[in-house]
Amino acid sequence: MVEEEDLAARITRLVEEVGRDKALLSQRLKDINPLDLAQVFQDLDDDIRDIVFEALEPAAAALLLDETDPATRERIIQESTPEELSQLVEVMPPDEGADLVDLLPEQKEKAVLEALEPPKATEIQELLEYDPETAGGLMTSKFAVLKQDMTVGQAIESTQGQVEAEDIYHLYVVDDAGVLKGLVPIRRLISARRDTPLSDIMQTEVISVLTNVDQEEVARMADMYNLAAIPVVDDLGRLQGIVTLDDVIDVIREEASEDVYRMAGTSAQHPTLESPGRRLVFRLPWLLILVVAGLINSIILRHFGHTLETITAVTFFIPVIIAMAGNVSLQSSSIMVRGLATGEVIYGRFFKILLGELSTGLLIGLACGTFIAFGSLLLHVESAKLSLAVGIALFFSISVAAVMGTVMPLMFHRLGADPAVASGPFVTTLNDICGLVIYLSVATALLT
Amino acid sequence: MVEEEDLAARITRLVEEVGRDKALLSQRLKDINPLDLAQVFQDLDDDIRDIVFEALEPAAAALLLDETDPATRERIIQESTPEELSQLVEVMPPDEGADLVDLLPEQKEKAVLEALEPPKATEIQELLEYDPETAGGLMTSKFAVLKQDMTVGQAIESTQGQVEAEDIYHLYVVDDAGVLKGLVPIRRLISARRDTPLSDIMQTEVISVLTNVDQEEVARMADMYNLAAIPVVDDLGRLQGIVTLDDVIDVIREEASEDVYRMAGTSAQHPTLESPGRRLVFRLPWLLILVVAGLINSIILRHFGHTLETITAVTFFIPVIIAMAGNVSLQSSSIMVRGLATGEVIYGRFFKILLGELSTGLLIGLACGTFIAFGSLLLHVESAKLSLAVGIALFFSISVAAVMGTVMPLMFHRLGADPAVASGPFVTTLNDICGLVIYLSVATALLT
Repeated sequence: MVEEEDLAARITRLVEEVGRDKALLSQRLKDINPLDLAQVFQDLDDDIRDIVFEALEPAAAALLLDETDPATRERIIQESTPEELSQLVEVMPPDEGADLVDLLPEQKEKAVLEALEPPKATEIQELLEYDPETAGGLMTSKFAVLKQDMTVGQAIESTQGQVEAEDIYHLYVVDDAGVLKGLVPIRRLISARRDTPLSDIMQTEVISVLTNVDQEEVARMADMYNLAAIPVVDDLGRLQGIVTLDDVIDVIREEASEDVYRMAGTSAQHPTLESPGRRLVFRLPWLLILVVAGLINSIILRHFGHTLETITAVTFFIPVIIAMAGNVSLQSSSIMVRGLATGEVIYGRFFKILLGELSTGLLIGLACGTFIAFGSLLLHVESAKLSLAVGIALFFSISVAAVMGTVMPLMFHRLGADPAVASGPFVTTLNDICGLVIYLSVATALLT
Repeated sequence: MVEEEDLAARITRLVEEVGRDKALLSQRLKDINPLDLAQVFQDLDDDIRDIVFEALEPAAAALLLDETDPATRERIIQESTPEELSQLVEVMPPDEGADLVDLLPEQKEKAVLEALEPPKATEIQELLEYDPETAGGLMTSKFAVLKQDMTVGQAIESTQGQVEAEDIYHLYVVDDAGVLKGLVPIRRLISARRDTPLSDIMQTEVISVLTNVDQEEVARMADMYNLAAIPVVDDLGRLQGIVTLDDVIDVIREEASEDVYRMAGTSAQHPTLESPGRRLVFRLPWLLILVVAGLINSIILRHFGHTLETITAVTFFIPVIIAMAGNVSLQSSSIMVRGLATGEVIYGRFFKILLGELSTGLLIGLACGTFIAFGSLLLHVESAKLSLAVGIALFFSISVAAVMGTVMPLMFHRLGADPAVASGPFVTTLNDICGLVIYLSVATALLT
């Protein structure tokens, strides 16, 4: 593992020593794995960072750019000229190149594409036509294609010329129209006699996805079928590209992080390194909605003002009702959000799932309601009736929270919205309000 | 994509039609991809499920067992005899076989190991010695090893005999003592002349992990270095196994889900399909702690009883203070928990991160405090002083919540505990209490 702090210090020292001698710095930087460099890059001072980036070989710079954090990437992209960027794109795998070009403002995008070598430019332009969050946007067009009428010997020769990348897992076989017909595990290619027809050793059942399939679905399939790579085809079944597992891993990480951040009502990307101002822009709208919900709560409480004035002790249990309703709904909704992401929750199981959460909610409500009733009786002996009211209210508000926490993410998902957004603050707040109304109604009925 | 509901119905019909004719059922089940079957297996009735499982070929049964949900897996394992289980383990990849054996009670584990063929038994026993959550527990011992003094031709021949699996990405080269010396991308092996010494074409810089490295770290490295597989070595550098990307994907998914569930205070596994009773066992302890916290809150409120009696309107804003403190701390802690998991948050950046969250917290507190002060002034005109108190209290409690939400997951992580457990209910509740004390103190000071 990399000693991250040390590497940052080492690079800073290196730049301070030989920074003016660009050739020497460039030479010295070759000893550092660009992926390690990417990890510490954001910890370097801005000016050190600029000097280092300029001294890197295009291939290392491209790799670093792909691996560094979004804020740093954006900064480098903004400061680089179209010519510098096109040099980087030229050495990047086509899918990553397309992702980079996609980040540029229109003018700069055009300039970069014009500065590229024509075959690369066409390749990138084709990839740019796909939504970046689909199989098409994720796939690389760098893969080995074999024709179904080849022999093993021909296939081996053809492979050697076709692909520069060394991370090919399988070889895909197409017909004359480019339609995907099968795949040959590279190992089987080695072990077969050179005059065997490819069609004899190829696997004809190939799991593939259409270009417009959502990246989350691609990741789910790769995971479910334990695939090393998934071929991507168009409507006519023609092979367009492949999605490799390292991209799938990025998707799974991203989607999981997105779920967590969205459930907490923050931005969809990891915000640690964004400026406080930008973070505010993402988080404040959510929180202001919650403040409005708080004002609504204050109106509800004023509505029950008579009860509160008569029996101040009713106030004592407002926090616990709100906290429990919020927490139980957060539990239910977290389970739903992750389950939808991993495929453990599907609509065919809806009633089974709902019934399960409802029973759990009822049991939890019963347990917590009983516990708090006795607890409050012990602590605040003066009020047996109030303890009963709190117990009953907790039972009902927990049960409602469990059902709402289950149903709402599924409802959002069905409506095509992100279920993670529904969870967290949204469901929590709704359940706060419900819990409050339930509690104050029960308390008023029993005590006044 | 699989039509899941339909497949379940199709299988049920199949069993009803030919269930008694085991040979025919077995034959018909061969047409169904065991991975598709695994997806719908939990939706089948118990008796149908048992008939289907018994009719499967060992290889298909093993695959299904590995891919189905934990509850179903446990049930099958409980109901199978050691002989049946050993047949399954025999055809499983060694890492998955070891995982299965690891789930068994001691007696049954022994019986299964005894029923296995000796080489398989030794292999499994060796794997069982590793903690399942480490590189050693994750690795497979099924990989191709080449000796460094081989030629390309010898390497190709040796590979063909060595590995049955077709998902090898790279070939690892060891010396006579078994120490990892390099790797040869399989593609390079094809394209080289057969009399080339392996040492001429092998890559000598190989990223590897020790057997006791945590699985989360393994996943992070595979992701960071875009590796298709990671070799696992012992203290002496001897190659023990490899971790393949599909296992890494499982780890990433699991760890992400674990974070989400732990933050919500539920069990670490996806609980949709567990019984309500078992879910209760996981969730109730957390929730009872929160009930206790609620009782503490009730004592705090009683302590401020005089204020609440004199000015009932103070009560109206208790929910919003609690909700905001809880939500802001949930935002901060979610960011930390995911950041720690993905490696975006490291200790070298601690002060930078804390400062960033503190500034964000101050800004959010200022915005929300101002907003609620004016909002409550509009809604409840009678009380200008109360509005001021609410605004000030909200500012302070949000700022405190942002800092605590940032610091506590890091603190837990440093202490070796799971930061996700610290977040969610725990941090939220602590901030509820802080917010309440701040609010009631400010209100008492300003209003009485």
